[in-house]
Amino acid sequence: MRLNIALVSDQIPMDYLRPAFAARFPEAALHRFDTEVQAHGALSDIDVAVCWSPPPGLLARMPKLRLIQSVGAGTDHITRDATLPGVPIRRIVDTEMAAGMNAYVAWAVVHGQRHMAGYIANQRSAAWQEAPVIPPGRHRVGIAGLGVLGQSAARALAAIGYPVRGWSRSPKSALPDGVQAFHGDGGRAEFLAGCDTLVCLLPLNEDTQGILNAELFAQLPYGAHLVNAGRGAQLVQDDLLAALESGRIASAVLDAFVQEPLPASHPFWHHPRITVTPHIATRTGPETIARLTGNHLAQLSVMA
Amino acid sequence: MRLNIALVSDQIPMDYLRPAFAARFPEAALHRFDTEVQAHGALSDIDVAVCWSPPPGLLARMPKLRLIQSVGAGTDHITRDATLPGVPIRRIVDTEMAAGMNAYVAWAVVHGQRHMAGYIANQRSAAWQEAPVIPPGRHRVGIAGLGVLGQSAARALAAIGYPVRGWSRSPKSALPDGVQAFHGDGGRAEFLAGCDTLVCLLPLNEDTQGILNAELFAQLPYGAHLVNAGRGAQLVQDDLLAALESGRIASAVLDAFVQEPLPASHPFWHHPRITVTPHIATRTGPETIARLTGNHLAQLSVMA
Repeated sequence: MRLNIALVSDQIPMDYLRPAFAARFPEAALHRFDTEVQAHGALSDIDVAVCWSPPPGLLARMPKLRLIQSVGAGTDHITRDATLPGVPIRRIVDTEMAAGMNAYVAWAVVHGQRHMAGYIANQRSAAWQEAPVIPPGRHRVGIAGLGVLGQSAARALAAIGYPVRGWSRSPKSALPDGVQAFHGDGGRAEFLAGCDTLVCLLPLNEDTQGILNAELFAQLPYGAHLVNAGRGAQLVQDDLLAALESGRIASAVLDAFVQEPLPASHPFWHHPRITVTPHIATRTGPETIARLTGNHLAQLSVMA
Repeated sequence: MRLNIALVSDQIPMDYLRPAFAARFPEAALHRFDTEVQAHGALSDIDVAVCWSPPPGLLARMPKLRLIQSVGAGTDHITRDATLPGVPIRRIVDTEMAAGMNAYVAWAVVHGQRHMAGYIANQRSAAWQEAPVIPPGRHRVGIAGLGVLGQSAARALAAIGYPVRGWSRSPKSALPDGVQAFHGDGGRAEFLAGCDTLVCLLPLNEDTQGILNAELFAQLPYGAHLVNAGRGAQLVQDDLLAALESGRIASAVLDAFVQEPLPASHPFWHHPRITVTPHIATRTGPETIARLTGNHLAQLSVMA
């Protein structure tokens, strides 16, 4: 029987995935349910839904669905749907995605720690002005979230020369050499007290919603830097603005926002100590998404 | 007999070194010969000159001099003096300096490769605009100069996920794992042909003066990025401007300039695809300079 694959999003056109999926699944029928094409006629035939922020309620109308494949490392954009059917959900995390995140995190940490935003601002007025050069060895970086991406970023930052610590909800084994590990509520305060830069790579869930708030900022060293490459809903926006105002947070590099694109009127855009990037920290290539979708389908067949 | 140490520069005040040298050499007399203090009276007593760009001719007037200590990784700011006496010259290269350079180079490579300058420019007009996310694994970074700093940067870039190649004048042993090595005139063209970003960490000497020129740019892949954390005199400025104009070079991150501070009227300041930083790529702490000066003195005594 022919495999029916739906490419589903209520935010972005999904046609960028079509060539890779056509190559990986030459016998399959591909259906688009996105902002540009709504092929709803085929709902009852769909076997696999490849998703970025699927419209709530849509997946429940796919009776034959057996795999929900996220195109990213997170699943929060899928699980926010209260009507979600009880079908396996799989994420995409691979070395390519991890390397992309390594690059973003390395850039963002150095950008804050080494005053790069200031130099770039100074360039506009041709102002040659050195800021203190603090060696990486004297600037502790903490990574909240020690999944595949967090562990990989920890390894890259340690290779640069930063003392790296990590925090996760539950204890992790086999962390990269030299990374100091903390976990759970018990390890949280000690972890935060040693983060001259805090990098958030946590998944979004009930526990992490709003976790980057005034109470947390108060546990960081005074003048710490923040990098959020997790999810926008993890950050309490007004608390960040207040912490920047008071000096408790020195700078923030933010890649994820509650509303994307970030509205033009949002105060983050024009804050001198906030750097905004348009959710580009990392990305997986269409070929990888198609390949891993095939792997996940094969695993489910073996398990069935 | 009392040790006499001169802190010498015609560009910067050297008093920042005084506390560290007083702590490391409690019995020594410290003399300043810099832009603010010219203690020339003691010239005939000086044993050690700790230098950043010493005034040409000054060191030749120190008859007892037995060590010329650079405060940086380079010695070009000393050896430009045609009257230099035949006294050992020592550089400062340590893990702290290497880590600082790792951080700068990682930032600069990602800044160009991942379109960060564009995002920062877009932020000023609240423009949410994604550029293509090319994974590090598909962007080859080449490091010209495989001394301590070059090898260290190669290791850090490889840890992020970039395929790294390096070039040096003579063959190097014991390069970091996975770094593809090229050397000499024979290996130059093949090295350059695989540099999607070229990072210059070469020392300045007769061979490297003006090495970053139109002929070299023509050997890079079209649209390559340039990072110069070497010396300003290695770059032919007009050739860079022409290569940016033609598109052969996509962007440049520059930390070193022929004239520093870079004059306000210089075209680099306002070029949209040049990022200028004020020679802050790395720095050594005063304690390290004092400690290594002591080590170098001890080595010379043993050899004498």
